[in-house]
Amino acid sequence: MSHSNPDRREFTKTLSAAIAAGMASGGFFSTAPSAKANATTNGKVGVALVGLGNLSTNQLAPALQKTKVMELRGIVTGTPAKADKWQQQYGIAKEHTYNYDNYDEIANDDAIDVIYVVLPNGMHPEYTIRAAKAGKHVLCEKPMANSSEECRQMIAACKDANRKLAIGYRCQFDPFHRRCIELAREQTFGKLKFIEAGFGFKIGDPNQWRLKSALAGGGALMDVGIYALQACRYLTGEEPLEITAQETKTDPVKFAEVDETITWSMKFPSGVSTSCMTTYGFNGINQFTGLCDNGWFGLDPAFSYAPPQPKSSNPSQAKLDLDPVDQFAAEMDAFARCVLHDEPSSVPGEEGLRDLVAIEAIYESIRTGKAVSLA
Amino acid sequence: MSHSNPDRREFTKTLSAAIAAGMASGGFFSTAPSAKANATTNGKVGVALVGLGNLSTNQLAPALQKTKVMELRGIVTGTPAKADKWQQQYGIAKEHTYNYDNYDEIANDDAIDVIYVVLPNGMHPEYTIRAAKAGKHVLCEKPMANSSEECRQMIAACKDANRKLAIGYRCQFDPFHRRCIELAREQTFGKLKFIEAGFGFKIGDPNQWRLKSALAGGGALMDVGIYALQACRYLTGEEPLEITAQETKTDPVKFAEVDETITWSMKFPSGVSTSCMTTYGFNGINQFTGLCDNGWFGLDPAFSYAPPQPKSSNPSQAKLDLDPVDQFAAEMDAFARCVLHDEPSSVPGEEGLRDLVAIEAIYESIRTGKAVSLA
Repeated sequence: MSHSNPDRREFTKTLSAAIAAGMASGGFFSTAPSAKANATTNGKVGVALVGLGNLSTNQLAPALQKTKVMELRGIVTGTPAKADKWQQQYGIAKEHTYNYDNYDEIANDDAIDVIYVVLPNGMHPEYTIRAAKAGKHVLCEKPMANSSEECRQMIAACKDANRKLAIGYRCQFDPFHRRCIELAREQTFGKLKFIEAGFGFKIGDPNQWRLKSALAGGGALMDVGIYALQACRYLTGEEPLEITAQETKTDPVKFAEVDETITWSMKFPSGVSTSCMTTYGFNGINQFTGLCDNGWFGLDPAFSYAPPQPKSSNPSQAKLDLDPVDQFAAEMDAFARCVLHDEPSSVPGEEGLRDLVAIEAIYESIRTGKAVSLA
Repeated sequence: MSHSNPDRREFTKTLSAAIAAGMASGGFFSTAPSAKANATTNGKVGVALVGLGNLSTNQLAPALQKTKVMELRGIVTGTPAKADKWQQQYGIAKEHTYNYDNYDEIANDDAIDVIYVVLPNGMHPEYTIRAAKAGKHVLCEKPMANSSEECRQMIAACKDANRKLAIGYRCQFDPFHRRCIELAREQTFGKLKFIEAGFGFKIGDPNQWRLKSALAGGGALMDVGIYALQACRYLTGEEPLEITAQETKTDPVKFAEVDETITWSMKFPSGVSTSCMTTYGFNGINQFTGLCDNGWFGLDPAFSYAPPQPKSSNPSQAKLDLDPVDQFAAEMDAFARCVLHDEPSSVPGEEGLRDLVAIEAIYESIRTGKAVSLA
């Protein structure tokens, strides 16, 4: 694509966005900052991935070959060899290729509407805030940050810049998870009473960033336990009132800086109680079950990159025999549509913040040996 | 069977017991009190069931038609109609039929070697202690009592009377559960790291004794949560070091006196951690899973009267394709053999006490909102 005529490009992009949005939101010719997309002439939203690790390489880039509204246009990487490879593999122009020294210059790159922050957790705040200051909308991987305080700073920065902020909660865009939310909310099996949810795996390389507190913020809980927490929150549609947690560490060398195995319980306002777990110590738990007055439903596995597998006391009633989708493509297209149509994200920064508030309560309960009230 | 010649009967019973025991334990002609059976001439151990409720009617009496070493000879019931029915159905002689007024006269009934206490939990201590004082060995249903203090009194009473005391932990005599214990202890899937265990059901009749604190001692935890607790204890072969628990009550009328839903976590000395739950509020959880370094195994359902169903990450390695047995028959025959051979029970009063110690810690954690140390 050509970017030789910035003025014209700016105009047509704005036009395109307005058309896509049905010109519903007004302010079309306004000079005030708008949350609308810098969508380019092809009607798509351009994204730059920041951090070309495993997730970007094996999940996001392939997913971006399937997205309908979001388009991979830029990369930010500190590794020149990766830059070369991605430029060739995905036809990314040199002018949309950045490193960590010139990252802020992305402000001048109108092809990039959205920055997807795929860095280690501890770097999310800085790169989100700088993205917002560069005038870009931000999609940030989970967990949003290492602390609720950082989440609040990120939300404020994006608000100040009038940019959208969403968190990479791919499961919330998956049809199996959506259907389970319906089953819970519509009380297909009667009132939801209990959720059992857990996600863990046996972590390998002892030198990876996920085991470093500064970069990861925490261990299994921050990385994968958050999926179980999310499941409890989106199935109930509520925030926990009380959290009780316990941690076990069997390898204090490998897990010197982060948590290994955590179990936690939560009470929700509607009376739902939950039993959750997460671990870096072993494989085998990757599921949630919603137990209701007259039956149960769930996914097992639930949180893998592979399609979820449904389970139910009554499969024909659960209607969970659905066609799988690429969750990352669905997540990214959803955010692209929010940007194009100037609509709020269903997984905004506030959603990431709510998880961090609960996660901090889990750590507090472990630290103090006491139930933590969030009421 | 005839009981016209007490002296001869006593002698042949003792002889029979000694033969069965391989005359290994000495004291054959000793006049000191012996823990040996009053086994009758047919070489079997006679049992009287105290309390002819659902469990006795639908599980124990049918199981006693299959037992090889224990024989149903007596009943204790406050309902004459039940007495008539059982006498006819099981050929129980009038002389071995008791009510709650003449219960202690069972001391003179040499056909009865064992009393199986199948009353509401709160009545276990009294009827166990009176059984021991009547010179009978005691098999007592779980939970052993409403408190650890009562357990200690029951143990002391049986010890003072030189009578054996065992708790009705039928799962410990089930081949599926035994095999799972082997898988854990022999580290077939590597070191055991985590146990997920839960058992609950939606309780019906709001007027039943299980919802009365004085009779039941507690709710779901005392009644069925104890199975999940047991599973954690027999899979690890250890006692919990720390317990953290949370309770949720959605129906404070029905569950005014007892617990409805409880989640709890335990840490064991070997580093195993557990996530457990129990409920009277809904159906659907009746399982345990043992997660190890290199795989997992479990039973789901695990604790029903119907045969357990195995599950594993590697079924051919787990070797859980076993033939089901009648768990109650196995449990009763095992105790009968202990009595006959004067051997210790694998599920003695002390085993029941250990569960009550853990259960009290669970209730304490709920009451105080704090982790409870048992170290």
